[in-house]
Amino acid sequence: MLLFFDFDIGENFQDFTFDKSESRHITKVLRKNIGTEITITNGKGLEWNGVITSILNQKVVARKISSLKHSYKKKHVHLAIAPPKSNDRMEWLIEKITELGISSITPILCDRSERKIIKKERLIKIAISALKQSQQFFLPEINPMVTFKKYIKNISHHGLIAHCGKSSKIELKNYSWESDQVHLLIGPEGDFSLNEIKDAISAKLKPVSLGQQRFRTETAGLLGCNILLLKE
Amino acid sequence: MLLFFDFDIGENFQDFTFDKSESRHITKVLRKNIGTEITITNGKGLEWNGVITSILNQKVVARKISSLKHSYKKKHVHLAIAPPKSNDRMEWLIEKITELGISSITPILCDRSERKIIKKERLIKIAISALKQSQQFFLPEINPMVTFKKYIKNISHHGLIAHCGKSSKIELKNYSWESDQVHLLIGPEGDFSLNEIKDAISAKLKPVSLGQQRFRTETAGLLGCNILLLKE
Repeated sequence: MLLFFDFDIGENFQDFTFDKSESRHITKVLRKNIGTEITITNGKGLEWNGVITSILNQKVVARKISSLKHSYKKKHVHLAIAPPKSNDRMEWLIEKITELGISSITPILCDRSERKIIKKERLIKIAISALKQSQQFFLPEINPMVTFKKYIKNISHHGLIAHCGKSSKIELKNYSWESDQVHLLIGPEGDFSLNEIKDAISAKLKPVSLGQQRFRTETAGLLGCNILLLKE
Repeated sequence: MLLFFDFDIGENFQDFTFDKSESRHITKVLRKNIGTEITITNGKGLEWNGVITSILNQKVVARKISSLKHSYKKKHVHLAIAPPKSNDRMEWLIEKITELGISSITPILCDRSERKIIKKERLIKIAISALKQSQQFFLPEINPMVTFKKYIKNISHHGLIAHCGKSSKIELKNYSWESDQVHLLIGPEGDFSLNEIKDAISAKLKPVSLGQQRFRTETAGLLGCNILLLKE
């Protein structure tokens, strides 16, 4: 399947015209021509199948053959994470959680956060590229950065906070889904502050442990999501 | 814990002299001085605790306070994987499996392998750096590259082959450990060849599936090891 992505494509599109940059990619890099079958998704479950019918003014045009709407089959994992200092590590994480197929990621600003700004547009591009590569129809939502305090306000018992402190915690691998939504919170290098942990517990989040190891932030985020999705 | 690494250190060492490069790191970057407590491991379970007693000829010297030998608490996961085309992705994988704490990784040469050479020394350096960062005492063994055929010769029913073909497979998350050793085989981009899958099944390896998603090689390697270690 030759999968492309467009935010705006809908089931009702009879034709689709690629922009010049994607058209160049299709004709020059992939070396595809009239007659090639392609698929386009909007990242919200749509699978739009078409065939290239013309190349006009350096733009590739495809005509619809069929379309279907996939339903989201998994439970919803939402990752809220303090972005690591290195941009590369955040970009790597975006690629991996897209392959895994979680529902959303929200960068959170914590007491000990070292990275306070993220490049959302760049992260979305990386997610789209991973979505195409891993042939999926659902793009994780990449939210703007919010403060830890704001994030924990409305998640209540759907929230899990993975911290390294010594308080009583459940092993994430033993967690049982209570609904079809779960929010996993991963702190910055140096962990959540004691106040944050206290606030999370007051807000009814459950403290969880990923095991004995000391993981990097982005490793904890990926492996935590993997564990949650195994248990659905 | 300020953790350092040396292949040769043993329990019987009363003093340890760091080389010039590590000594410069300790004094100039970490800004440590006489009296600082440090820990050194050999990656085989040793925890050698000492204190910096002198800095002579630009070399930091530490004297032993105590030592202990950790025993390996997990079951042994051995990852055999066709290295991805991009070196960065292989290096990333080495970092992550070291954080996770698997026993060994072996690059395998498959029918469809695109990368046929690896830089073993560089990968060992990355593993040591991840070991220090994640404060562990066991370094995964990084083996030289071998052919797929050679690797599957002696692992028999301890071997699991994760392929994307349509034959009958067990879900990795439902796998039950039969001994304390398991070898997980992950193929190159484009999967194992049909011959390889046939040979693996003849050699009594079990075909396994990581789920519905199409993962990149290095993602499949990491998530597969994570799943196996959850089940021990």
